[in-house]
Amino acid sequence: MAITVQNVIVKIMEPVDKIQNTVDTLKFGDPNMEVKGIATTFMATQQVIQQAINLGINLLITHEGLFYSHMDQAEIVEESPVYLEKRRLIEESGMAIFRIHDYIHRYQPDGIMVGLIEALGWNPYVEKNHPASTIVKVPSMSLREIAEYVKGKLGIEFVRAVGDLEGTCTRIGLLAGYRGGGALSMPLYEKEELDLIISGEGPEWETPEFIRDAVYQGKQKALMVIGHAESEAPGMKYLAEWIKTIFPGIPVQYIPEKPIFQVV
Amino acid sequence: MAITVQNVIVKIMEPVDKIQNTVDTLKFGDPNMEVKGIATTFMATQQVIQQAINLGINLLITHEGLFYSHMDQAEIVEESPVYLEKRRLIEESGMAIFRIHDYIHRYQPDGIMVGLIEALGWNPYVEKNHPASTIVKVPSMSLREIAEYVKGKLGIEFVRAVGDLEGTCTRIGLLAGYRGGGALSMPLYEKEELDLIISGEGPEWETPEFIRDAVYQGKQKALMVIGHAESEAPGMKYLAEWIKTIFPGIPVQYIPEKPIFQVV
Repeated sequence: MAITVQNVIVKIMEPVDKIQNTVDTLKFGDPNMEVKGIATTFMATQQVIQQAINLGINLLITHEGLFYSHMDQAEIVEESPVYLEKRRLIEESGMAIFRIHDYIHRYQPDGIMVGLIEALGWNPYVEKNHPASTIVKVPSMSLREIAEYVKGKLGIEFVRAVGDLEGTCTRIGLLAGYRGGGALSMPLYEKEELDLIISGEGPEWETPEFIRDAVYQGKQKALMVIGHAESEAPGMKYLAEWIKTIFPGIPVQYIPEKPIFQVV
Repeated sequence: MAITVQNVIVKIMEPVDKIQNTVDTLKFGDPNMEVKGIATTFMATQQVIQQAINLGINLLITHEGLFYSHMDQAEIVEESPVYLEKRRLIEESGMAIFRIHDYIHRYQPDGIMVGLIEALGWNPYVEKNHPASTIVKVPSMSLREIAEYVKGKLGIEFVRAVGDLEGTCTRIGLLAGYRGGGALSMPLYEKEELDLIISGEGPEWETPEFIRDAVYQGKQKALMVIGHAESEAPGMKYLAEWIKTIFPGIPVQYIPEKPIFQVV
């Protein structure tokens, strides 16, 4: 029996109770179309979409929005040639694009975090999962050693750090995506007696400056910011693995992107 | 006649009509205290405050808030030893700390931007000042050359870039601080026919991904993110120079901080 776009959407939303006002909707394509091939990605960039077309995929599942706005505020860019060209490529392809953001973050535990922990090889060290963070206790390493370890495991070129690179860390809070902001990150250092938080991104005047002051006061605290995509892409790779087990008859793959920034 | 804290505050707010609901308030100290020495800084970190105390300064003027929150949401950190120790240092010093954020951004032109343009030596190239951005047309340079130039002029170790490092740029939009977000930055590329935006910081899934797609489409566009503090500190240095001219009898200086991030 043919599997439709809607069949796949229903399955990947199934682990979570219905969320009101979600960004997780079918952005393009026909929900009744038969699915020939599925790909997941952190963000459906123009390059990822082109690659999906070349691979014969007709259902692309993206974590972040298509047009550079969490809430799909298309009016910001709708007159831009960049937007128009990307939109045309999608429409001409006939591809379905579904966004899964809120739902995967509400899997138990957070599906994005599961992928990150697995990519880091830190499953044996998980102490607890909060809704927006996971606490791990790893064998003692210096901040510099952890940075090199994370870069190696995630295949990234650089991380940004605040704190003493030779200082030892063992209790680490992981916060994927934009959860590096002060409200989520700062209280966690005390509450969970953390040496280090590893996050995707967040405002520079919040957690980074909190840690700068803590370090100046002689406290052994540190922060490592690895990049939004770098922290969440493993979760979308994990989702592809899971979808394979649900729909074994359909080709499913994960499409990576290059890091967004070059350091000069 | 003795100059009070209040006298200085009145003078530096004078160029702008009264702003309702501003974060620009006296955070600590007595408005009637006689001012013995003034310092400006991007952010009053624990180290900056300690240095100000050592220098005999009793009025510190900061651009960003003291406790890692733009809106002074102290409840996020008020039980943290980091917060308590910093607060104690300030209270025991008797120092007055005034925040100037909204007012200096509303100087005509934006005082923070004036300092940045001056630090970059780009005064001769200014085409126009918008409320949240300045457009310059500089002699043609590659993105890599501009990155090296900016690093040299601002004394910073690294910048993060999106786009072809060998691509040529001449029309540049400058957006200090957190104005790197999509709503302010993305429409400016079209409207001002920009090759490049240089901004402080902004969400990674907005302007950076917009530029990634533009570049993939073959468009000659680029983005350079230099850091929030790096983009705004020169404006606070400029403020110190201006205050010197208003109160020639009082020692006035600018206190710098180290860059917040190390790249590993």
